[in-house]
Amino acid sequence: MMKNFFEPLGVAVVGASQKPGKLGHEVLKNIIDAGYEGKLFPINPKADEILGLKCYRSLRDVPEPVDLAVIVVPAPSVPSVVSDCGAKGVRAAIVISGGFSETGEAGKELERQLLEEAKKSGVRVLGPNCQGINNAIAGLCASWPLVRAKGPISIISQSGTVLAAMGCWAERDGIGISKLVALGNKCDVDETELLEYLGRDENTKVIGLYMEGTRDGRKFMEVAKGVVENKPIVVLKGGRTPKGVEAAKSHTRSLAGLDRVFDEAFKRVGIIRVHDVQELYDSCRAFSSMPLPAGPNVAIITSSGGSGILATDACEELGLNVVELPEGLCATLRENLPPECIVRNPLDLTGSATSSMYDVALSKLLVFEEIHSALTIVGDPMPGIADVLAKHLKSGKPVVPVMLGGGKAEEEERAKLADMKLPVYPSPVRGAKALAVLRKYASWKSV
Amino acid sequence: MMKNFFEPLGVAVVGASQKPGKLGHEVLKNIIDAGYEGKLFPINPKADEILGLKCYRSLRDVPEPVDLAVIVVPAPSVPSVVSDCGAKGVRAAIVISGGFSETGEAGKELERQLLEEAKKSGVRVLGPNCQGINNAIAGLCASWPLVRAKGPISIISQSGTVLAAMGCWAERDGIGISKLVALGNKCDVDETELLEYLGRDENTKVIGLYMEGTRDGRKFMEVAKGVVENKPIVVLKGGRTPKGVEAAKSHTRSLAGLDRVFDEAFKRVGIIRVHDVQELYDSCRAFSSMPLPAGPNVAIITSSGGSGILATDACEELGLNVVELPEGLCATLRENLPPECIVRNPLDLTGSATSSMYDVALSKLLVFEEIHSALTIVGDPMPGIADVLAKHLKSGKPVVPVMLGGGKAEEEERAKLADMKLPVYPSPVRGAKALAVLRKYASWKSV
Repeated sequence: MMKNFFEPLGVAVVGASQKPGKLGHEVLKNIIDAGYEGKLFPINPKADEILGLKCYRSLRDVPEPVDLAVIVVPAPSVPSVVSDCGAKGVRAAIVISGGFSETGEAGKELERQLLEEAKKSGVRVLGPNCQGINNAIAGLCASWPLVRAKGPISIISQSGTVLAAMGCWAERDGIGISKLVALGNKCDVDETELLEYLGRDENTKVIGLYMEGTRDGRKFMEVAKGVVENKPIVVLKGGRTPKGVEAAKSHTRSLAGLDRVFDEAFKRVGIIRVHDVQELYDSCRAFSSMPLPAGPNVAIITSSGGSGILATDACEELGLNVVELPEGLCATLRENLPPECIVRNPLDLTGSATSSMYDVALSKLLVFEEIHSALTIVGDPMPGIADVLAKHLKSGKPVVPVMLGGGKAEEEERAKLADMKLPVYPSPVRGAKALAVLRKYASWKSV
Repeated sequence: MMKNFFEPLGVAVVGASQKPGKLGHEVLKNIIDAGYEGKLFPINPKADEILGLKCYRSLRDVPEPVDLAVIVVPAPSVPSVVSDCGAKGVRAAIVISGGFSETGEAGKELERQLLEEAKKSGVRVLGPNCQGINNAIAGLCASWPLVRAKGPISIISQSGTVLAAMGCWAERDGIGISKLVALGNKCDVDETELLEYLGRDENTKVIGLYMEGTRDGRKFMEVAKGVVENKPIVVLKGGRTPKGVEAAKSHTRSLAGLDRVFDEAFKRVGIIRVHDVQELYDSCRAFSSMPLPAGPNVAIITSSGGSGILATDACEELGLNVVELPEGLCATLRENLPPECIVRNPLDLTGSATSSMYDVALSKLLVFEEIHSALTIVGDPMPGIADVLAKHLKSGKPVVPVMLGGGKAEEEERAKLADMKLPVYPSPVRGAKALAVLRKYASWKSV
C-alpha cells in the first residue's frame, strides 16, 4: 500500500502550474529535477504543456496508469480530485493543499468530506496541509526544497519545516536522505503506519520523527517497539510545557497528551528522545554511518587540551565512561608518540599533532578490548585526517569526529569526510552527545 | 601596560621563518595579511629577508622602537630572548613556544627562569605555550588562523582551539571580533588582568572566557563584578566532573578547584555560564548586536507551526514567558494579517507567510509595552526577510532571528544578515537560548 507513495510507477501533479514560484510549479519541477524516471503527468485544465510535459485537463484523461497523485489545487476542489483518483485507479494521494482542519470549523468539515471520499474511492491520503514526500533513493522529490543526496536517514514529520531543515542539512553535509515524509493534518496515513513501512525499508538505517501527538498511543508504541528491534528511532516531540501543548493544539489539532506519559513510553520502548531539531539531525547522522559501541568506555583523542576537557565533562555527564588507560597501553602509546603528548584519557596530542599521530593513537587504542569507542577531536589544521578517521571507522567501533578551529585546512578535510558520507561535529559537546545516543541505543538493544 | 600587547607601535617576531607551514612563518604572514600598519621586524640570525621584510640577527639589532615581541623560538632560548627584550626596551612579549610547565619538571624550571628574567627585565609575558593575540580592530593577527573580520566580541581563552573556533565562526558569519587572547600557561599575564583591560576597551561589547581555573579566585571575582556592571561576561569553564578536573590538571596544571564554588561565584557576580564552545559563541553573538530585553515576555513569530511549538517549550523552560496576547492586540493582528494566520503566541503566519507579513506582525507586537522581545522563526524561503528583521531590531527590543529549512533563498537572506553583522540561529532551541542569555544579563543588571 505505502509503496504507491514511495515507489509509484506513474505520478500526476494535480494543480500543476506554469508559473514559477507557485507550489504547483515548484513541486512538478522538483520531481523532474530530482530525476524521477517514471511517467509524469501535469494536470491543469488551462494548459497544454508545463515544463515540457504534456498537460491533461483532468486525472481521468490520463491515458496511462498512475499510482500517485500529488494534489495542489485549492482546498474546496480536493474532494472531487480524490474522487477522480478513485475513478482512475490511483491508490495514493498526497494532499499538499492547506485550508482544512487547521483553519477551523469549515475546514474541518471539508477534511471530513475529503476523508469520506477517499474511503469510498479506495484512495489512501497523506495530508492534507502537508509538505509532501521525498524519496531520494527513487529520485522522487514531491516536496520542497529540492533535496537529491541519497543516504540512509528517513524522516517522518508533523512539521514541514523540520523536515525541510533535515533534508537541507543532510544534503549540505553529504550525508543524504532516504525518505522524507510530511504528515500534515494526517487525516488518513499517520506516523504509525509510516514507521511500520520505514521499519521494513532496507534503504532506511535510522528513522527520525517529529511529532506533536498521536491518535492511538498504544498502537504507536507497539509498532515502534518492533521497529526499534531492527533500527533506531529518534523522536523530537513538541509540547513539553503547558504552553507548548496549547500551541500544538492550534497547530495540527493533535491531542498532545501528557508529555510525561510519552516520555516514559519512549524509554520503555527504546525510542531515543531529543529536544531540538539540531539534536535530531546530529543523532540521525551518527546512526547513519557509525557502528554501535559495545560498552560505555570511550577514549578521547585530541589536539586541543581544552576541548578534551570539555569532551570529558560532557561524556561523563552523559553516562559514558572516560576510562582510565591501563599502564601497559600508556607505555605503548609513549613509545609510539612524541614526548610532548600527554598520555592519559583524554589523550592530548597537543598543538603539534599530525594525522599520522592520530593514526598511531587510534591503532593502539581501538585494538584494546576495554575501549568501546573513540571521540576524536581535531582542533588544528590537520591535512590527511579525513582518511585516518575513515580508516579507523572500519574497526567496527565508532570513531566520532569533532573538528573546530582549523580554518581553511579544516574545510578541506570536512569536504572529504562529506564525500565519504561521514558526519563531523563542530564542538566537543555535540560530538559527545552523538556518541551518547549511539551508546543509549546499543545498551537498550543488548538488554 | 596591556596596551603594548594590543596596540604596539612596533612588533618583532623572534624566530621568524622563511619556511611556509612553520609557526614562525605563519605568524609573521598573518600579521602582514591582517594589515598591521606599524613597523614589523622579523628576527632570525640566518636570514636577510623574510616575506619581503628586512630580517635582523637579534632583537638588540633592531634600529627602531619595538613595543611587542612575539616569540616562536625553541623553549630553551626563550629566557635569553626575554632578556634581549629588556635590553631593547620591549615591554611586552607573547611566548608562543611550548615546552614549559605543561611538559613536566624540566619545563617547569624553564618557565620559572623565563618569569624570573621577565621580572628582572621589566617585560610582561603572555604565555608561554599560547596561541597569541589577535586584535582585529588594529589589524594585528599575531596568532592563527588568520581572522580579519572586525566586530564587538572579545575572547580570552586557556585553549587555543576554543579561541580559534570562535574567531573562525565569527568571521564566517560576518559577526567579527575585537580581540582574541590565548592565555597558555599564564606564567605572568592572566585572565583577571585581561578582563580588567577588556572591560575598559571601548571596542569590546561582550567578553567570552574559556577557563579551567584561576590562581586568585577572590581577585578574579572582584574584577569580574566590576566589568559585568558595564558589559556581559560569558564563561565556559572546563572541569565540571571529577575526570574533567583531572584532565584540566594535566592540561595547564591549573588548580581547577571545586566547580560548585565557581558556579556559585559566577551567579553571585552576574557572570553567564555556558557549557559548550557553540553556546559560548551563540551567547557572545547575541550580545554583539542586540539590545537587552526589559522583561521576560517574548512573542514568537513563525512560519512553521512545529518550530513555534519547539521554541515555546524552550522559552518556557529557560525562564522566558511566552505571554498570552491581549484580545485587543489579537484583533489588530487579525485585521492586518490574512485569515490563515493563527493569531496567538506563538503567532503562526503559516507556510504562506511573506516578509511583509513578518513586518506587519513585528510592528504590531513590538509597540506593545508588555512584549519585551521577539523570537522570529523563518522556516521557509522568505525573500526580503533580512531587511525586515534589521528594521525591527532598531525598535530597541531584541528580535532574535532563527532560520531553517529555507533552502537557497535562506542562504541569500543569511548572507544579507551577515553583512549587517546580525546573528542568525539555525534552530528554535538555539535561538531561544540566545534570547534567554540576553534576559539573564538584563535581569541581573536591573537588580
